[in-house]
Amino acid sequence: MYRLLEPGPVVLLTTARHGKANVMAMSWHMMIDFDPPLLGCVVSDRNYSFKALKATKECAINIPTASLAVAVVGCGNTSGRTIDKFAEFGLTATRASHVTVPLIRECYASLECRVVDTRLVARYNLFVLQVLRAWHDTSVTRPSTIHHRGFGTFMVAGREIRLPSAMA
Amino acid sequence: MYRLLEPGPVVLLTTARHGKANVMAMSWHMMIDFDPPLLGCVVSDRNYSFKALKATKECAINIPTASLAVAVVGCGNTSGRTIDKFAEFGLTATRASHVTVPLIRECYASLECRVVDTRLVARYNLFVLQVLRAWHDTSVTRPSTIHHRGFGTFMVAGREIRLPSAMA
Repeated sequence: MYRLLEPGPVVLLTTARHGKANVMAMSWHMMIDFDPPLLGCVVSDRNYSFKALKATKECAINIPTASLAVAVVGCGNTSGRTIDKFAEFGLTATRASHVTVPLIRECYASLECRVVDTRLVARYNLFVLQVLRAWHDTSVTRPSTIHHRGFGTFMVAGREIRLPSAMA
Repeated sequence: MYRLLEPGPVVLLTTARHGKANVMAMSWHMMIDFDPPLLGCVVSDRNYSFKALKATKECAINIPTASLAVAVVGCGNTSGRTIDKFAEFGLTATRASHVTVPLIRECYASLECRVVDTRLVARYNLFVLQVLRAWHDTSVTRPSTIHHRGFGTFMVAGREIRLPSAMA
């Protein structure tokens, strides 16, 4: 889980409420703990996903690679209030095992999450999530994740270097 | 500030206490807000930097590029309890303007920060920081930041793509 998130990829957050699923693009996330696996994320209360996340306390974090960049930006530029982003951007909703929100088949990894701490939601829109299950395509060893640099610019994951590290 | 942090680089966190400066490598950070500029980070209470950060409420986040990878891993594999990491890894401490911790000259960007919320420190070691001043080398437009993938593996920032985005 931390190996997926630490490099800082743009992710697609899926939520569902009243039978309606939604997707948003998100870069504001970080690891919080290994055991239990916790992460933090900020979902603005101006985002349509905010209410669903707050009410249902469930979401999934799906990690796209560069081939999905156009869909990712599309999700970031539109609102689930007015369109069905799955249909609009050719994303396939698949069933999760521990939450009732959909995963995105086209993403190479997905994390099923439950909100476990809301103390910083009122002030910062900051949710603490526990990862209940992590999926990833094991055939993808060096994912070409995309990383937001602002103003329509994204860095695509580049070469890999190995250095003896005691950091997990 | 967010354009520096959102792509998820490994950063070097500097602290100082009782006249002694220290550096640690950190990947667990995220943006929280634009105005005021806030970010979150997790500093384990097993890290030597934890006490200094908690006591002084000051730090700087310095962003290295791939040329500093050996120093970054060195900082991650050692403790300020036993060595002076600035001397050991050839890092130059320079004066900050709004905090009393040093910045690292060899890094292409530095954020001077003050701790503004400690509600999640006891439970998660999660600090909310306000960025008081941001510095960056304006000659570096596509920084070869390094991104932790775990177990001694780092992704180096690759090519850049541009897509029409309404996301700031």
